[in-house]
Amino acid sequence: MRYLSALNPVSRVAEVLPKVKKIEEVEKVAVWDAAGRVVARDVVAPHDYPPFPRAAYDGYAVSSDATPGRFRVVGTVLVGQYKRDLSLRPGEAVYVTVGAFLPEGTDAVVPEEAAKREGEHVVVDRRFEKYANVDPPGSYVRKGTVMLRQGFVATPFDVVGLLDVGITTLYAYRKVKVGIVATGDELVVPPVDPEVAAELVMRGRVIESTASLVAWYIQTFMPYVEIREKVVTSDVHEEVRAVVDRHLAQYDAVIITGGAGPSEIDHFYKLGYEGLRGFRMKPGRPTSVAVVDGKPIFGLSGYPISALHGVIRIVEPVLRHMANAARAPSHDWHYATVTQDVPGEMAQIVRVKLETAEGGLYATPLKARHHSFTEPEAGGVALIPPGGVKKGDVVLVLAYRDVRKL
Amino acid sequence: MRYLSALNPVSRVAEVLPKVKKIEEVEKVAVWDAAGRVVARDVVAPHDYPPFPRAAYDGYAVSSDATPGRFRVVGTVLVGQYKRDLSLRPGEAVYVTVGAFLPEGTDAVVPEEAAKREGEHVVVDRRFEKYANVDPPGSYVRKGTVMLRQGFVATPFDVVGLLDVGITTLYAYRKVKVGIVATGDELVVPPVDPEVAAELVMRGRVIESTASLVAWYIQTFMPYVEIREKVVTSDVHEEVRAVVDRHLAQYDAVIITGGAGPSEIDHFYKLGYEGLRGFRMKPGRPTSVAVVDGKPIFGLSGYPISALHGVIRIVEPVLRHMANAARAPSHDWHYATVTQDVPGEMAQIVRVKLETAEGGLYATPLKARHHSFTEPEAGGVALIPPGGVKKGDVVLVLAYRDVRKL
Repeated sequence: MRYLSALNPVSRVAEVLPKVKKIEEVEKVAVWDAAGRVVARDVVAPHDYPPFPRAAYDGYAVSSDATPGRFRVVGTVLVGQYKRDLSLRPGEAVYVTVGAFLPEGTDAVVPEEAAKREGEHVVVDRRFEKYANVDPPGSYVRKGTVMLRQGFVATPFDVVGLLDVGITTLYAYRKVKVGIVATGDELVVPPVDPEVAAELVMRGRVIESTASLVAWYIQTFMPYVEIREKVVTSDVHEEVRAVVDRHLAQYDAVIITGGAGPSEIDHFYKLGYEGLRGFRMKPGRPTSVAVVDGKPIFGLSGYPISALHGVIRIVEPVLRHMANAARAPSHDWHYATVTQDVPGEMAQIVRVKLETAEGGLYATPLKARHHSFTEPEAGGVALIPPGGVKKGDVVLVLAYRDVRKL
Repeated sequence: MRYLSALNPVSRVAEVLPKVKKIEEVEKVAVWDAAGRVVARDVVAPHDYPPFPRAAYDGYAVSSDATPGRFRVVGTVLVGQYKRDLSLRPGEAVYVTVGAFLPEGTDAVVPEEAAKREGEHVVVDRRFEKYANVDPPGSYVRKGTVMLRQGFVATPFDVVGLLDVGITTLYAYRKVKVGIVATGDELVVPPVDPEVAAELVMRGRVIESTASLVAWYIQTFMPYVEIREKVVTSDVHEEVRAVVDRHLAQYDAVIITGGAGPSEIDHFYKLGYEGLRGFRMKPGRPTSVAVVDGKPIFGLSGYPISALHGVIRIVEPVLRHMANAARAPSHDWHYATVTQDVPGEMAQIVRVKLETAEGGLYATPLKARHHSFTEPEAGGVALIPPGGVKKGDVVLVLAYRDVRKL
């Protein structure tokens, strides 16, 4: 098949999946280091959070039953302090800041600006209901709630959401280790003198950027892949073979760029692997893939856009499968149609569920669970302009879960 | 205005822009280091590229006038080799690989598989037109073409496109230097023992993640900003003031997180700057901004989602203005409606111009200028499925320029 006479439909990449060895090793990682990792076990809340009523506003913690009324201020609880044992008696209050756990005997917060301070007393002239300006126990998350599902790639938003409720470790699959081998006698490899490099290009040389673009795509869309090495080789086939063999022994997958076409330089062909050689895709026809002992070897064109096309169509589905990644991350602003009215005079940011229908993106606002981000349903935050939006309006959404149907 | 009684509409951020000092320093940078930098002068092609006819296919370089015919193969020109001086006589051919400049006297490439080799001769049995399987001189880019406009943030795609045609340097504004000051006695700062951290959260402490989320947003959407320091301080106001003063002296902007609300701990208020304190936004009302000697100081909530909202609405417009960034980068898959039919049996990737209309995204395929990415009009590459698409169909687009109207 030297001349790629029988190109494969791109859908044949599906045949590769059962042949590769999926990552099985699982490790416990600190949540603050988990962004980009594939979650190996459902992350389940081990407790209600907050465990006690928590101030949602700066002010005076009181017993709601005693409002309206006059209270003696007997102390202060700042966020981060633990003074649950400071049991208040009837007629007593403490000053609290947002995030502080309320002392026993109190269940509401009177905003600082709604209370009148009189020496060591404070006067509250209206009724405050139970849990007014308070996040009740379990209001962020209930014990047993699935916060992040197995197979999801943890995002910076998940990190925030989990730490917020005191979940500090999770189980993740180890990353897929990949070696990249950029081949070509013509390659000029930065850093070099830019003027000299420019001159060389005018004499037919090529500044290495294909493997760099491939690496960028992997780092951006496949954070569960670790590029262990990026090596530039000559076109001497023995050199290419030696590097590929070493990478194959050390890593889970190898990506070769350049020398993929049907020419006298055709490393993938000369390596002699059984596999799919050439796909019905434009550009990028020489894209190839073979599997050796469960490890995929990819051959990509030396041209940047052709190689990128090969990464998108062939490399990404295979590596994602190996990584056990069911839901990849996103990291951009998107346009989406809101499925409900969102009223409000102020400018807002609201968490949304993102869904793809008829190829477009639809955003359904989720009931705000206070300040916590994480829940498997949420996929982004929508920016609502002052005055609100109507069902059917298009808004900008900062998505953190992949909007592609994969 | 201790209690944020008079909140500002978010649109008032526009009043801040004329007060900040824009970055004026310009530096020459190597293109391979330019991703994320704001271009300070239009990048103009200094020459046609390719400078000579270039092989677009592996095969035999011949004179089109002599086809069909029989040629004696007198040599080989591999990509990266410069053999323009190898002038061919009538009836001679050379073997070339994709990317090689054709020797004088040749103007077409006969694909290897379309020619019959007979010893040191090759037989071509049909006519090949001038520039068949050849990229003509200037076909990638014409001398004088604007490749990348002043104010655009260079992306990894621009790097590839510029290097491809031998442009190796450009002028960029220096990055905006920012200091982040995360305040709060309650903060637990990783890395720490995760089990201990979890225990502390159940006793009211908070694991620092707000400033980390702010840093992530800046790194992702404002690559033209350099976070020089991220410092965590106590709530002792003198400590906060000392750190803010030092950052203000050393950097172009300072971001304070936490202690922004109207409580006893309210660093932004206590710092005493004249500015906009509190915005009509939910969450994130305590978001504040002041300008001292052309340098903005931002006060953000200690809550992650509130702080994020403040960054999006208030910080980003100001820093982008300071950075001279007219067109920010994008880095994600988007849904877009194609404005023209794209026929084709093969799976394709095509460069597209991206436009926002009625809030949605529209993609107009651009005439492929071979393998070069860069041109100011292009904003992404669209993935076309096998069989092509019709005008009005929705396709996935990998965008590399910001899809927001800013």
